[in-house]
Amino acid sequence: MQNSGFTLWFTGLSGAGKSTLAQHLAPILRERGCKVEVLDGDEVRENLSKGLGFSKEDRDTNIRRIGYVANLLSRNGCCAITAAISPYAEIRREVRELTTASFVEVYVRAPLAVVEERDTKGLYKKARAGIIKNFTGISDPYEEPEQAEVVVDTGEETVEQSAGRILSYLEERGLLAAN
Amino acid sequence: MQNSGFTLWFTGLSGAGKSTLAQHLAPILRERGCKVEVLDGDEVRENLSKGLGFSKEDRDTNIRRIGYVANLLSRNGCCAITAAISPYAEIRREVRELTTASFVEVYVRAPLAVVEERDTKGLYKKARAGIIKNFTGISDPYEEPEQAEVVVDTGEETVEQSAGRILSYLEERGLLAAN
Repeated sequence: MQNSGFTLWFTGLSGAGKSTLAQHLAPILRERGCKVEVLDGDEVRENLSKGLGFSKEDRDTNIRRIGYVANLLSRNGCCAITAAISPYAEIRREVRELTTASFVEVYVRAPLAVVEERDTKGLYKKARAGIIKNFTGISDPYEEPEQAEVVVDTGEETVEQSAGRILSYLEERGLLAAN
Repeated sequence: MQNSGFTLWFTGLSGAGKSTLAQHLAPILRERGCKVEVLDGDEVRENLSKGLGFSKEDRDTNIRRIGYVANLLSRNGCCAITAAISPYAEIRREVRELTTASFVEVYVRAPLAVVEERDTKGLYKKARAGIIKNFTGISDPYEEPEQAEVVVDTGEETVEQSAGRILSYLEERGLLAAN
């Protein structure tokens, strides 16, 4: 079976584990015959959105660009994994609607208390101190997905468990050949 | 033979026929088994570079973004055809170097007198009148490619002839299975 393209859209707080999960999944999907590109939030900002800030308008523009590229990739047979916070429900819906390939939204859920405690990049501390403005979860909203295809709880699951649940979903949906 | 991905990078003056040629080639390449995306200058500006102007810096940023997306597509087996003026040699070289798939630069050549006479979008007239600033060929430089893989002369050739020469090159290069 030739795997068809799809967009695996991760959304969740900074530090919830989106990039970790994306980087964990990418080689597994490649091993199983998929072409894979990870569109990581930071990398995409550097390449497509330099100069944009974190106002709602700029965030939306950034997300639209990621969605545009993910769509180009996925409709050409690639598995595009996006790993941007993408905090606003409306723009996630817009991206879902414009995507012509299959769109799988994955809510990478972790309680604010957990990600703030981890604070892997030291950003929450800066956000609490007001050094970083418009920080999702602290001074900017995160709108939880209500109909995500997959929800993973990274505060309770290992990355292998979360990845396994996503892979199972992709198999059930017929987007990935069963092992 | 499975066709591998490549970037077909068109460069040339506004009105030289880049988009026309791209739109002519796309269905032919699809018919011959390629996955094809046309990254047209105007469309890409709308989707990736809204807010950017036509200063050298902004043009370079726009071209880098097109190059980034073309690379993502081509390294995943797609034929990415870009149709932006891309007037500066240095940034074209930069994009060529970052592209991990095959990169084919096509100089879509037409004398300024010819494209100005055509003036399909009425832009040259506005540029001459000073209504549009930084207009390539009039008030902004166009740096001709010195080592383009293919040069087509749209002032003298039909679109079929130009397309035929590009297809022949792709066959010779082993990027397209011969008919």
